[in-house]
Amino acid sequence: MPVGPGDDCAIVMCGTEKLLITVDQLLEGVHFTLAELGPKNVGRKAMARNLSDVASMAALPLGAVASVALPKGFKRDDAETLYLAMKNTGELFHCPIVGGDVSVWPEKLAISITVFARPAGIKPSLRSGAKAGDALCVTGHLGGAWRSQRHIKFTPRINEARILASRHELHAMIDISDGLASDLSHLCDSSGVGAEVVAADVPLHNDAKNIPDITPLQAALSDGEDYELLFALPENHAEQLIREQPLTVQVTRIGTFTAEKGLVLVKPDGAREALPPSGWEHKT
Amino acid sequence: MPVGPGDDCAIVMCGTEKLLITVDQLLEGVHFTLAELGPKNVGRKAMARNLSDVASMAALPLGAVASVALPKGFKRDDAETLYLAMKNTGELFHCPIVGGDVSVWPEKLAISITVFARPAGIKPSLRSGAKAGDALCVTGHLGGAWRSQRHIKFTPRINEARILASRHELHAMIDISDGLASDLSHLCDSSGVGAEVVAADVPLHNDAKNIPDITPLQAALSDGEDYELLFALPENHAEQLIREQPLTVQVTRIGTFTAEKGLVLVKPDGAREALPPSGWEHKT
Repeated sequence: MPVGPGDDCAIVMCGTEKLLITVDQLLEGVHFTLAELGPKNVGRKAMARNLSDVASMAALPLGAVASVALPKGFKRDDAETLYLAMKNTGELFHCPIVGGDVSVWPEKLAISITVFARPAGIKPSLRSGAKAGDALCVTGHLGGAWRSQRHIKFTPRINEARILASRHELHAMIDISDGLASDLSHLCDSSGVGAEVVAADVPLHNDAKNIPDITPLQAALSDGEDYELLFALPENHAEQLIREQPLTVQVTRIGTFTAEKGLVLVKPDGAREALPPSGWEHKT
Repeated sequence: MPVGPGDDCAIVMCGTEKLLITVDQLLEGVHFTLAELGPKNVGRKAMARNLSDVASMAALPLGAVASVALPKGFKRDDAETLYLAMKNTGELFHCPIVGGDVSVWPEKLAISITVFARPAGIKPSLRSGAKAGDALCVTGHLGGAWRSQRHIKFTPRINEARILASRHELHAMIDISDGLASDLSHLCDSSGVGAEVVAADVPLHNDAKNIPDITPLQAALSDGEDYELLFALPENHAEQLIREQPLTVQVTRIGTFTAEKGLVLVKPDGAREALPPSGWEHKT
């Protein structure tokens, strides 16, 4: 098995072809409140989160299977809405639902989706592989996804990842689900390197502004659920990429990978401070 | 997509290779009682049920991913026992767990396993394809699996299926999970045929004897959870197969597929009666 648990997708050999697989569950009361999101958004998000894992490997989805445990009394219409949202979201990325298992039980809604994908001519981008001196880049703008509908409505960056990985020598990539600092920390751990992040260069989302008690930068570093791509590539590739901006979403260089382990935040005044994987220290 | 939902596995193309995928969930309180089975048996069964679906297609497992929602307060030791049972059961059939997603929630235990497999030189056996005149055969002995530990301890018939499908022209195959009559009915529906079952030829398991209120035959027809193979093949192939008995488990011919739809049970006195997909009519 080329890559096992620990990356965004596992990779196994299917005959002579590489196969990528990822599984994610979405649980009512843990990952979402049903009354708040509604079945359509839940279905959309359940599929999109898995597709984002496929994006982080720069792979092309092949299909999905889903298992759903419906709460007793769940309305048939709502179940259909849920299914259609999963199906339609998958199909936007050529990822049909090819099988499933539906049960009814007296507990809350539980959804588990498995997506399988293939490299289709592009080398899968792993979490390991970032090198000291590599540029650290992100797609899009970060922070505050939970305050808006962005944690539901996000676009899995499959097309963007394919363009990036086909044109540039990507050394490592991950999608930002836990938060910039946290996912960067995962990527650094897998690669055996550290990173410094230039605070002034982090692209702040409008949703990250005016959040009580935290700054937009803190939100961008810690909030998560952005489902943007975070990646490592050689400096000269990064320069060309930033100049050309080949994606429909902005690409920004926010720092540099370092031989010294750990994350460092470089403040606008040049001061350097340790960046905890949680994003920031909440000082009470 | 060559085969979608409705068969035991879906089949998709992974580049030039066929890929088979199956998903099954095991829910506490619906599919099992945790206090009764314990985490080891639950883990074993969760994996083995999926492997049985792979067996019914005569495919070779490649790997599995699992998602597990653990009840709050579930002991760490029990979680490890559960995982190890899934892992060890998979590895008996060269099916490593390559990825997973574990969460804790305040509801009951929910397990979803996806297994992917490949034909590896043997044409996948579908539910469709049985022809009128084909012999109807089963592996093993049937009935009463719920009264013993057989519904937990069963051996997925992967090796048996590979031998059958490599040596004989199998027209259709399914594993017996719902019950002989029910699964035969599924297979007939997919194939557009009917079948007659010779009552005296149904191989009765010892577990099927002495069940209050039902006969051993009724148990064999309706109980389910046998996880044996039920298959269609040309009569001359069946004759050779029954004569040679190439498996470590007995193969028995129990009837014939018919052009006329519906299931018929042929009694020892030659009387013919309709066989309902539920197996038998409970006469109160």
